[in-house]
Amino acid sequence: MEVSLYEVGPRDGLQNEKEIIPTSLKTELIERLVSSGLKKIETTSFVHPKWIPQLADASDVLHQIKRKNGIVYSALVPNMRGLERALESGLTEIAVFMSASETHNKKNINKSIAETYPVLREVVEAALAKNIKVRGYVSTAFGCPYEGEVSPAAVIQVTEELLRMGVYEVSIGDTIGVGHPRQVKEAFTALIGQCGAERIAGHFHDTRGMGLANVYAALEAGVRTFDSSIGGLGGCPYAPGASGNISTEDVTYMLHAMGITTGVNLNELVKTGEFMEQVLGRPLPSKVLAAMKSKQKGGENENEYTGC
Amino acid sequence: MEVSLYEVGPRDGLQNEKEIIPTSLKTELIERLVSSGLKKIETTSFVHPKWIPQLADASDVLHQIKRKNGIVYSALVPNMRGLERALESGLTEIAVFMSASETHNKKNINKSIAETYPVLREVVEAALAKNIKVRGYVSTAFGCPYEGEVSPAAVIQVTEELLRMGVYEVSIGDTIGVGHPRQVKEAFTALIGQCGAERIAGHFHDTRGMGLANVYAALEAGVRTFDSSIGGLGGCPYAPGASGNISTEDVTYMLHAMGITTGVNLNELVKTGEFMEQVLGRPLPSKVLAAMKSKQKGGENENEYTGC
Repeated sequence: MEVSLYEVGPRDGLQNEKEIIPTSLKTELIERLVSSGLKKIETTSFVHPKWIPQLADASDVLHQIKRKNGIVYSALVPNMRGLERALESGLTEIAVFMSASETHNKKNINKSIAETYPVLREVVEAALAKNIKVRGYVSTAFGCPYEGEVSPAAVIQVTEELLRMGVYEVSIGDTIGVGHPRQVKEAFTALIGQCGAERIAGHFHDTRGMGLANVYAALEAGVRTFDSSIGGLGGCPYAPGASGNISTEDVTYMLHAMGITTGVNLNELVKTGEFMEQVLGRPLPSKVLAAMKSKQKGGENENEYTGC
Repeated sequence: MEVSLYEVGPRDGLQNEKEIIPTSLKTELIERLVSSGLKKIETTSFVHPKWIPQLADASDVLHQIKRKNGIVYSALVPNMRGLERALESGLTEIAVFMSASETHNKKNINKSIAETYPVLREVVEAALAKNIKVRGYVSTAFGCPYEGEVSPAAVIQVTEELLRMGVYEVSIGDTIGVGHPRQVKEAFTALIGQCGAERIAGHFHDTRGMGLANVYAALEAGVRTFDSSIGGLGGCPYAPGASGNISTEDVTYMLHAMGITTGVNLNELVKTGEFMEQVLGRPLPSKVLAAMKSKQKGGENENEYTGC
């Protein structure tokens, strides 16, 4: 079996960092991720710098990366103005986003779900007209910080609307890390039954330690694409231990252990995770990073056992 | 559905701490765990203090706890000398242990697996003669630091031998945290088919972040008893982030979210985790502890959503 990993650390991770990372280190991170075998990377966001100053250098990052053939470099785009900036950066793929819950969508985008559709439709149609692929994100798909549990029906409705616009894949996000394996298995079984496995990706946060349990439950439901973040970057830098996205190292370790191929070199990934720890000056949440970095002796040793 | 949690923090957790915790704080921890709704607690170990000085006060701990009716207070016992000390402490349950892999058993117990059986049989028979229940542990059941992957056949052989001695339940331990969900589901399905679900418990370590994924996989295989440790105590204090047992808070949160009852009060558990963080002077690995402790406003708020 093969699973595709979509690396979101440079965007979903770095947008949550207190400090602003120098552009040159962001491009080095992206190039190291590519060297680790990752084929799809969300590099930055064209949300207005007023909202996310950490990613104000989006255009510079994209102009300074040494791009490699066959690699998808994507970026988040909220509206037409963001799309214009993305087009100037020579992107071949972008991502649009909205929430499955009204209140979170309103607080995040300042529009109701119904008001959001035409805004995203305009972006998607303009991008497709320029032969740019568009990915979709549905946030708070399992729980909303304001409304509590979110129903699969609400998620399916938003997902189908995005697919009708021409989005090629929708990433279903457990934004606040409250989804549990039973809920995840049920929701993805329904989503895949309705939309097809090739159109659905899983985006989990490890805020309550259920990240990999949810990946396993989603795998059982037929999901074959997962978003993850190097080192488990992201989450809340103000809440120690409260991590963000599932770590690319951890999900890669688990998939490889289960005999699933990803095309990723775990040892290179761990070195990239160590690089980010040096850049940020703190340990990152990834457990595999913590377990393997001290063991690295070079060479393929991802199956090495440690007594700890 | 109901799941039983076996708290091993005071033993499996504290035996891995650099510093030695004062006896009064150990007894306070045990009493707080009981107040949190946990019914079965492994309080300490009667392994010779030369090997585990952190638990040299085993007898004092057991004499100083204010015991409550209906609560199982257990302790680890390696041999007849340990059993004598356990008997003096008025225990009603003990636990014996060995490994599923020859090399780890040899390094841990200094005997081959075959040489270990008669030693444990003598302890089990002497305990049963005193109406003391005996639990069994099988270590390195999924991977050995010296031999690599361990076969289900080897685990079943040791497990059946322990059950034949008169052990009422065998806890199958992923000592070094390398087991993955597919392996766990296959191994527990085989074990339960051979020995019965009521005789098998799951003991997972979160060293590589797969702890809760393995709990979910074991639940699917029919396991209904899991060992866990308050805060995720244990593991390697010298390797930051490399955690030990799965955290009692995290597994409780996931089980409750899935509609499974445990009898545990998660808010009390989180307060107990915070108490241990204060005792040790560092944050513990539990993700739910990190996510909930800052949110505690008293009252039942385990379903509160956080924006992080």
